[in-house]
Amino acid sequence: VSEPQATSGRARGRPRAAEATDTREAIVAAARTRFAENGFRGASVRSIASAAGVDPGLVRHYFGDKSGLLIATMQLPVNPLELIKPLFDQGPDGLGRRIVATFLSAWDPHREVFTGLIRTAIASADHESPLVEVLRSVLLTGLQGCMTGPDRELRATLIMSQILGMATLRYVLAIEPLASAPAEQVADEYGPLLQALITPN
Amino acid sequence: VSEPQATSGRARGRPRAAEATDTREAIVAAARTRFAENGFRGASVRSIASAAGVDPGLVRHYFGDKSGLLIATMQLPVNPLELIKPLFDQGPDGLGRRIVATFLSAWDPHREVFTGLIRTAIASADHESPLVEVLRSVLLTGLQGCMTGPDRELRATLIMSQILGMATLRYVLAIEPLASAPAEQVADEYGPLLQALITPN
Repeated sequence: VSEPQATSGRARGRPRAAEATDTREAIVAAARTRFAENGFRGASVRSIASAAGVDPGLVRHYFGDKSGLLIATMQLPVNPLELIKPLFDQGPDGLGRRIVATFLSAWDPHREVFTGLIRTAIASADHESPLVEVLRSVLLTGLQGCMTGPDRELRATLIMSQILGMATLRYVLAIEPLASAPAEQVADEYGPLLQALITPN
Repeated sequence: VSEPQATSGRARGRPRAAEATDTREAIVAAARTRFAENGFRGASVRSIASAAGVDPGLVRHYFGDKSGLLIATMQLPVNPLELIKPLFDQGPDGLGRRIVATFLSAWDPHREVFTGLIRTAIASADHESPLVEVLRSVLLTGLQGCMTGPDRELRATLIMSQILGMATLRYVLAIEPLASAPAEQVADEYGPLLQALITPN
């Protein structure tokens, strides 16, 4: 079962892994084309699977839902969905600080990428950036499960606004001392503010 | 002393007022040119006065300092300096809510203008937008006088980040329910968060 021509060290598992990688890439390429042609809402998982020549079940197996597929087409250094979802598993206690700390640990090493995302979202003429839409729905869903008190939906969008404002000043506008403040210090100052929106009183 | 050809009602005062308007406009035009040529920092009030053919004292009389001149060149529907400075006159009590309510009352009628400002500031490659710089210094100066506790400068930039984030979600990205929530409700929810940064504990 030896493969004399193999240049990679992953001898035995390689063919199957390489095939999976090819399939994933074919699905991502098909998704990118469909999203560009029909928009995020107009493109169905079924039509993307069909364009990639695979079963829709395989698309769901690799990417979860259409949101996961959108994130995959963007080739981000961090997957926001994988970051956000576990935040809520530990319940509302300390959630405000966890959100800030997790956000900063993910994006501090990739300031330029974040700046590009913000510029694209803000420069786009339409108000319905699919990325913003996806993040909003994931954040809202998770937050609603942890929040108490009235006006939860408004408070959830105010939490988004705090994160976006913080990131814009820290990365895009690079205003000191926020731009260079240690992540721990920012989380200490900002965490309680988010917490006050999550569990008021 | 009657003026048969005058079409305006402001008969007697008009010539002098019109002259003052001409002088102001000449100064603003000279400032716009100098800022474009030498940047905000590189252009002096003296050089702007000289280009407009007036005394530097007259520039200060009309516009205060160079920041006032910058705001005048931007032809904004509201003058942020005139909005911001009186906020601090009433001291730290309720300042957080006053900042949010004043901001929203000024910009809610001019969402498109604010969106344009944000797009310009965020799209510009350099991190030193003179408008951001001016607002930062005015806000910082005013806030520092009202703030208590440690890390005042960091907390002041976090206040800026909250306002910017709120405005970006409300006006630029138009995310509901924040986009359409009554200003009073937003001030009620958001004011205490700013207040917690102004007077912690």
